[in-house]
Amino acid sequence: MNKSERTLVVSVPEPRSLDIIFTQEQKKHLFENYEVVETTSIDFGALPEETLARVKYVIGQPPISLDLFERMGSLKCVLNVESNLINNMPYDHLFARGVHVVTTGAVFAEPVAEMGLGLALDLARGIGHANALFEVGMERWGGDGNKAARLLSGADVGIIGFGDLGRALNRLLVGFRAKVKSFDPWLPASILRENGVVPATLNEVLEQSDFVFVVAAVTSENAGFLNGESFARMRKGAAFILLSRADVVDFAALISAVESGHIVAASDVFPEEPLPKDHPVRRVQNFIKSAHRAGALDVAFKRMGDMVLEDMALMERGLPPLRCKRAERETVARMRSKPVTTN
Amino acid sequence: MNKSERTLVVSVPEPRSLDIIFTQEQKKHLFENYEVVETTSIDFGALPEETLARVKYVIGQPPISLDLFERMGSLKCVLNVESNLINNMPYDHLFARGVHVVTTGAVFAEPVAEMGLGLALDLARGIGHANALFEVGMERWGGDGNKAARLLSGADVGIIGFGDLGRALNRLLVGFRAKVKSFDPWLPASILRENGVVPATLNEVLEQSDFVFVVAAVTSENAGFLNGESFARMRKGAAFILLSRADVVDFAALISAVESGHIVAASDVFPEEPLPKDHPVRRVQNFIKSAHRAGALDVAFKRMGDMVLEDMALMERGLPPLRCKRAERETVARMRSKPVTTN
Amino acid sequence: MNKSERTLVVSVPEPRSLDIIFTQEQKKHLFENYEVVETTSIDFGALPEETLARVKYVIGQPPISLDLFERMGSLKCVLNVESNLINNMPYDHLFARGVHVVTTGAVFAEPVAEMGLGLALDLARGIGHANALFEVGMERWGGDGNKAARLLSGADVGIIGFGDLGRALNRLLVGFRAKVKSFDPWLPASILRENGVVPATLNEVLEQSDFVFVVAAVTSENAGFLNGESFARMRKGAAFILLSRADVVDFAALISAVESGHIVAASDVFPEEPLPKDHPVRRVQNFIKSAHRAGALDVAFKRMGDMVLEDMALMERGLPPLRCKRAERETVARMRSKPVTTN
Amino acid sequence: MNKSERTLVVSVPEPRSLDIIFTQEQKKHLFENYEVVETTSIDFGALPEETLARVKYVIGQPPISLDLFERMGSLKCVLNVESNLINNMPYDHLFARGVHVVTTGAVFAEPVAEMGLGLALDLARGIGHANALFEVGMERWGGDGNKAARLLSGADVGIIGFGDLGRALNRLLVGFRAKVKSFDPWLPASILRENGVVPATLNEVLEQSDFVFVVAAVTSENAGFLNGESFARMRKGAAFILLSRADVVDFAALISAVESGHIVAASDVFPEEPLPKDHPVRRVQNFIKSAHRAGALDVAFKRMGDMVLEDMALMERGLPPLRCKRAERETVARMRSKPVTTN
Repeated sequence: MNKSERTLVVSVPEPRSLDIIFTQEQKKHLFENYEVVETTSIDFGALPEETLARVKYVIGQPPISLDLFERMGSLKCVLNVESNLINNMPYDHLFARGVHVVTTGAVFAEPVAEMGLGLALDLARGIGHANALFEVGMERWGGDGNKAARLLSGADVGIIGFGDLGRALNRLLVGFRAKVKSFDPWLPASILRENGVVPATLNEVLEQSDFVFVVAAVTSENAGFLNGESFARMRKGAAFILLSRADVVDFAALISAVESGHIVAASDVFPEEPLPKDHPVRRVQNFIKSAHRAGALDVAFKRMGDMVLEDMALMERGLPPLRCKRAERETVARMRSKPVTTN
Repeated sequence: MNKSERTLVVSVPEPRSLDIIFTQEQKKHLFENYEVVETTSIDFGALPEETLARVKYVIGQPPISLDLFERMGSLKCVLNVESNLINNMPYDHLFARGVHVVTTGAVFAEPVAEMGLGLALDLARGIGHANALFEVGMERWGGDGNKAARLLSGADVGIIGFGDLGRALNRLLVGFRAKVKSFDPWLPASILRENGVVPATLNEVLEQSDFVFVVAAVTSENAGFLNGESFARMRKGAAFILLSRADVVDFAALISAVESGHIVAASDVFPEEPLPKDHPVRRVQNFIKSAHRAGALDVAFKRMGDMVLEDMALMERGLPPLRCKRAERETVARMRSKPVTTN
Repeated sequence: MNKSERTLVVSVPEPRSLDIIFTQEQKKHLFENYEVVETTSIDFGALPEETLARVKYVIGQPPISLDLFERMGSLKCVLNVESNLINNMPYDHLFARGVHVVTTGAVFAEPVAEMGLGLALDLARGIGHANALFEVGMERWGGDGNKAARLLSGADVGIIGFGDLGRALNRLLVGFRAKVKSFDPWLPASILRENGVVPATLNEVLEQSDFVFVVAAVTSENAGFLNGESFARMRKGAAFILLSRADVVDFAALISAVESGHIVAASDVFPEEPLPKDHPVRRVQNFIKSAHRAGALDVAFKRMGDMVLEDMALMERGLPPLRCKRAERETVARMRSKPVTTN
Repeated sequence: MNKSERTLVVSVPEPRSLDIIFTQEQKKHLFENYEVVETTSIDFGALPEETLARVKYVIGQPPISLDLFERMGSLKCVLNVESNLINNMPYDHLFARGVHVVTTGAVFAEPVAEMGLGLALDLARGIGHANALFEVGMERWGGDGNKAARLLSGADVGIIGFGDLGRALNRLLVGFRAKVKSFDPWLPASILRENGVVPATLNEVLEQSDFVFVVAAVTSENAGFLNGESFARMRKGAAFILLSRADVVDFAALISAVESGHIVAASDVFPEEPLPKDHPVRRVQNFIKSAHRAGALDVAFKRMGDMVLEDMALMERGLPPLRCKRAERETVARMRSKPVTTN
């Protein structure tokens, strides 16, 4: 294809890079099928007027003022590969003109769900702790080492938040005959039931589960909604696994609940990241720590590129994007994610 | 019921005890519905002649000589709750007379399968190691800590041995979209296929898997069949998870294969148990050690009692036992388990 | 609640009625929680100006001119319970202003999928035909009656169109170990794969299936896309089951393909409905006829009411609708459904 | 292999034939790997003494007297491909000597289960009846034709008998979200639960199901156990599908229950087969008749050969047979099947 006949894509994937989100083959496909202009968030607004007028897809989420948007008359879709939504463009105007805003965060669902299951099994069986004892010759054999051990199979499982991640986790649990209930205030009960999950209130999830997985996004309304009272409601010895954002939890109260021996816990997210070297959680027993590693797998990033290419291909044929998740007028303003600082 | 009308059970469940394998309620049921004589392996042969003549069920596997067996004219079933089969009774004569010999080892399938999955996820994501680093402030954040991380979802999984444990493991993997192949020389290919697993040779399993689970029993023929050559065949970086018996593996070769960086490993079983304090495996990195804790959960032992009660109830109605696994004339002599020394 | 405080709903559900789509209990809930104005398509435009200004939800799809729309300043959502989309309102303007247009057609997926499976099993086993012979004493016993019989289990199944209905059908097939492939030009391959279905071209589906299910919607582009050449590509003796709209098929060619003995067929839809008494398809053997009965179950209509109530409840809380399917700017104009004339 | 070195098989598969149960390829395999002597039930006892002494496997169930059995000193297994068990050999003596008696009836489970599901869907949706009306121009369109229609998805399903066939049926129902309960007096409750089925009494199954499938074998104890009182217990309008043997049902009472309009029914088996031309069931409406065609598919017979070959191969390696079902000392005498007269 002649360069000028090809659809124009502006690539500004910070903090990702094209090499993070595309395989060599996918990147080749991108450059062969589209005219690609690479820039940065800072330079985005300074693109030539002609480029702005022709750009159909933006890969990334550069700041876009209303004035800038109005100069982008061909814009069809912002493909946000940072995957959170920052309030840096006039979403209402984009939606009014029919411009899609989509995110690729679903790629993290499977890796995070696997990490969540791994953390749950470690809490249930003491795998990491027992290995550490074994290395120094202090292991206990057989049933002697299993006083606190229990099964996930047949257990009561609670999932707080039933978006992509909650669903991925629920799928992994299929083979466990687990009784799964979920609290998600943004979803009608019927959608939970269709996924084989019992709709429940937050208190039911807390009070009636052996394992509680937290996969809820932070919104303007739910900061710290899991607090000391919440942990007190949990079953003695139950496991609390935090996978989404630290801001939904009163972290000090969580540490107290574990230190008191009431519950055990694991978390992939922390109030500050990186965490100060002297943060008290570092030394808490029965609290497995993971340094925001649950989602950041190479294979996940590469799926972003796949989603971007598939959705651009659909839009080239006049169809709506289907693989990425669309931002909604109603909820875009409620999201409270911070910019992503590392991949 | 009048005591003398009740069916006579002799209980000699060593190394278990009735309290290990029965809940309070089950034990009450046992004593209310059967006349129970409790004894030990050593005293078993010295039971009164009248007791031997009337005993219908033996719970345990005491040594039984041919002479002793011939005095047990009412014997219908030996319910072996040690769960391995020791060559301490005249099995051929028992089978000829139609006496069932059954074991309760299936109770361990689910706990061992969960431990196996937990070990696999820990190898895939470095959960225990990362937690240890986190505790001392040396954690790496996000993708930086995930260089070797990978997914089980969609992976090539090999299962060596497809008995109760292999099947339990395969069920847990349902939600992972994994491509599972299995090598089991004792099973026809069609049974593997019916379970959704691809029949494979041992070499295919070794060469074409990202995760290899070993759940094969030890027989007179397969000691050390997984050796240095086997590990060399495995994919670079693949995970080897040993869950059944250490005797199927050349353990020194396994340690070498992990130390060389070719594979990573986890094991619940060891050549000697307990293991000497200075055994080299203790210090091997990328080798998760579990001190024979995979099966020995209280919940598993209690299921033994449930199986025993259900099968005795079937036999009381003139039906064959169905829940416990029956020893087979053909294979009873090939098994090479050692007596169980701890619960 | 005071009437005037309640959200205003205008109900114009033709050709449905509130009693068709709501249970008594749901209808009570509707009237207690909303102010409901009932009208007809013809009278809709003549509603008082104050009513038009206040209406937030329209249940139905009355004709709405641009002028009328501009007087409906509070409109948030058109809940189309006819479930097809007719080009009788200024969709672009609705979308621009952020008004949702949603349909409830997903309620038909499960009933239609069950009918489709029933038709397939009847074609595979000759159930209806054998019963008719039995009634007149001409039945053939055992294998003699099974010359053309075959299994669905393990068969090659092709699904043309993988929307709600294709997915419902695919779910019903889970227990059949069937190898399912699907052609859907509106979906990226990855979505088919995520549903456990192999993406395929139309010709692959036709040429490599024992059972072909057609569940594709009619669009401006695909009228008659399954024609004589398509049927000729099918395997000898394969089954063709038409469940969506007759317009996607060259019906005369389908009849010929069945009459020639090349394939067998079943259809729930016909070029004219009702069909002339003398239409040739009536007498074709190996062609099971169903008079557009696949979806029209009372239980399906009642689910419409459930979806409407759940989505209005979400929107009352400021959230987007989730249960009904949203019309898309890109595709609304391509749909070619006729108005529904019967329930 | 030299002929005399090969294992000797006597083939007497009446009423089957080797060509019915083996594909060409399998038959070739059989004759290349075994020395095969073909005979008939009548001539079996007249085989040369040397043949009797060497025969290791019998394919079929010829009459075997105790005297004859004692001359068959190498006999290892009777592979009964008629699949029912007739009381024509000294089973106790076979079992005492460790000779396996196995049957291949499991091959019918899948075909019968599919037919059962097809009959259930036809009863639920009136497929055959509606097609007959359509052919004569009397069809009713849309909802008008669906007054009695209902869904299997989400329905209460009862299964009477949970052997191979009950399990096959339960597997087919996986995609229907059905609530399945089962009555099987020969199985412990835990086995039903492991299969995801709720254990129930016979009356619970009858009283609380929308669809009742009867797949129980006839024994010396259960003839006619489903009678007028049973049908009266069923829900108004519920469906009764008989798939195993007519002798478990009081057939006249079943006809009455359908004629009265209380239930609808389908049956693959009848008190006499073939059935007299004037039998009243022929004219009963809402009673779908199938002339013992549910199992007798060519593909099922060919699986028999596959099972026979796989199990002989296991036994050649000193392992027990695994694919065929073994007759049990306890239950062999209770079975009451008649000889099979047609394939």
